[in-house]
Amino acid sequence: MQKIPTFEDILLASDRIAAAIHHTPVLTSSNLNALTGVNLFFKCENFQQVGAFKYRGASNAVLSLTGEEASKGVATHSSGNHAAALALAAKKRGIPCFVVMPRTAPRPKIEAVKHYGASITFCEPNLQSREITLEQIVIRTAATVIHPYDNFQVISGQGTAAKEFLEQVPGLDVVLAPVGGGGLLSGTVLAVKAMRPQAKVYGCEPVQADDACRSFRSGRLMPALPPNTVADGLLTSLSERTFTIIRTHVDDIFTVSEESILQAMLLVWQRMKIVIEPSAAVPLAALIDNRERFAGENAGIILSGGNVDLLNLPFRQG
Amino acid sequence: MQKIPTFEDILLASDRIAAAIHHTPVLTSSNLNALTGVNLFFKCENFQQVGAFKYRGASNAVLSLTGEEASKGVATHSSGNHAAALALAAKKRGIPCFVVMPRTAPRPKIEAVKHYGASITFCEPNLQSREITLEQIVIRTAATVIHPYDNFQVISGQGTAAKEFLEQVPGLDVVLAPVGGGGLLSGTVLAVKAMRPQAKVYGCEPVQADDACRSFRSGRLMPALPPNTVADGLLTSLSERTFTIIRTHVDDIFTVSEESILQAMLLVWQRMKIVIEPSAAVPLAALIDNRERFAGENAGIILSGGNVDLLNLPFRQG
Repeated sequence: MQKIPTFEDILLASDRIAAAIHHTPVLTSSNLNALTGVNLFFKCENFQQVGAFKYRGASNAVLSLTGEEASKGVATHSSGNHAAALALAAKKRGIPCFVVMPRTAPRPKIEAVKHYGASITFCEPNLQSREITLEQIVIRTAATVIHPYDNFQVISGQGTAAKEFLEQVPGLDVVLAPVGGGGLLSGTVLAVKAMRPQAKVYGCEPVQADDACRSFRSGRLMPALPPNTVADGLLTSLSERTFTIIRTHVDDIFTVSEESILQAMLLVWQRMKIVIEPSAAVPLAALIDNRERFAGENAGIILSGGNVDLLNLPFRQG
Repeated sequence: MQKIPTFEDILLASDRIAAAIHHTPVLTSSNLNALTGVNLFFKCENFQQVGAFKYRGASNAVLSLTGEEASKGVATHSSGNHAAALALAAKKRGIPCFVVMPRTAPRPKIEAVKHYGASITFCEPNLQSREITLEQIVIRTAATVIHPYDNFQVISGQGTAAKEFLEQVPGLDVVLAPVGGGGLLSGTVLAVKAMRPQAKVYGCEPVQADDACRSFRSGRLMPALPPNTVADGLLTSLSERTFTIIRTHVDDIFTVSEESILQAMLLVWQRMKIVIEPSAAVPLAALIDNRERFAGENAGIILSGGNVDLLNLPFRQG
């Protein structure tokens, strides 16, 4: 049985990463409150280092390594925010970071990981090639593999966002977070249910990448169908560990259409004047779709990240 | 001779509008500091009501009216942020607002003014038609005309942004603000030179709308050449009043290319994850173009607004 973090582990993570991360602000918008009839609070992890909450988990994992482990570096396969986060966390500790990326990964994502000083190995764009390439690197370097979400210290680190959030806004009735692999949602629900048991916690995912919802409803981990969504941070599937946490503690999972995601993203850009990525718009989309259910409540939304290719936006131009 | 505000008028404005406006945050970016070699502080008026500093001046003008004046309403001709700002300020005081807009104004701008409840009268897209249409409205309604920048209370209100800024960051060596009609720059320099005389104040404008720079250099108000810039908030020209303030107190005026403006705008969106309009990027563009000059200094930049048509962005897509 895999080790599941407790709230105590989130508190330890919070102390461990305190000096490394940004204590991100909580924003409100009277405009969006009026539109939804809900008192909204937005935890702005788009302002986090590397532009995403992923830096919390990556930092906690890197800072939890022993000196000997750390000296050999860390490794992962990822084409998204986790790779950039791990690269920066490793750079700050002064240790090597090895990232396996599909040779088809978008150029801005490759540039970001390079920018943070990681050593990139390209592979074919399939899971087998990624895993074999990573294995070869680990055999050669003895680096520690830091999985993007199926990792004890990563989940503990992600939970620090919700811990901060409840310290900033103690009276939340409900917290909504996006769910892809489930690292953020797992950390969130562990923190919220410990600090404020009466608050509800909901996961939110694209209907076109709904493995978490199907697993939650059926009570068993469902194989991911090929996901196809603008929310490129939510393409991954739950692991046994994140599924165990989520099925035990999360109150429900909402799914939203691609159109709802883009509309929610546009609303945040227009009304709040902040840049969020499509994945970060998924909880607001779910809240808007179900707004009668939250009428008059204090709803906390974790804006998970702000990394978008501004020269290739999903909004139809012209 | 037209009345010029003093710092005392800015303090009065600050008290008058305190409950109406947002006390906007100052953001920093270690990323942009590293890129420029300057300690940058950004006063985020893109988070102001209606998404621009203009709400400060409009509020101050509306709240300065006597009860009898106010009952007849306010009027202006504008197709930009001032019209939306005046409309909301009037709505909050519960008085009518009449806005003359060219019938060719972009739909999002018309919608914004409508959204805030103003009565719109369309005119032909030339100055003569705008002025005649406005005059007719004033004859009919006896509304008070609130000019977007050539107005004592508007200038005093705009100065409250710099006052707040210096309260938030007392050690600024230099403050940069965009200049179009000169309302913001006038208010800024009046506040800064009163609160911190040793700090330099620079105006920044597009080279393709450089009437302020030409006027400043020549010492006399120069006719505006037809401006043509992506910075659509800076198409207007100085008035006698704003020119008098600027030539007396401002240290210099920088001009920047369209390319520098768009690059600076993109940098802010990418690195700071906030939405600013092209006009708001002009001071950062000027700072980047002249960064050796500011090396190691504490430079304050007023991000004037965040109103862009997200479905018609100036970034080349694809």
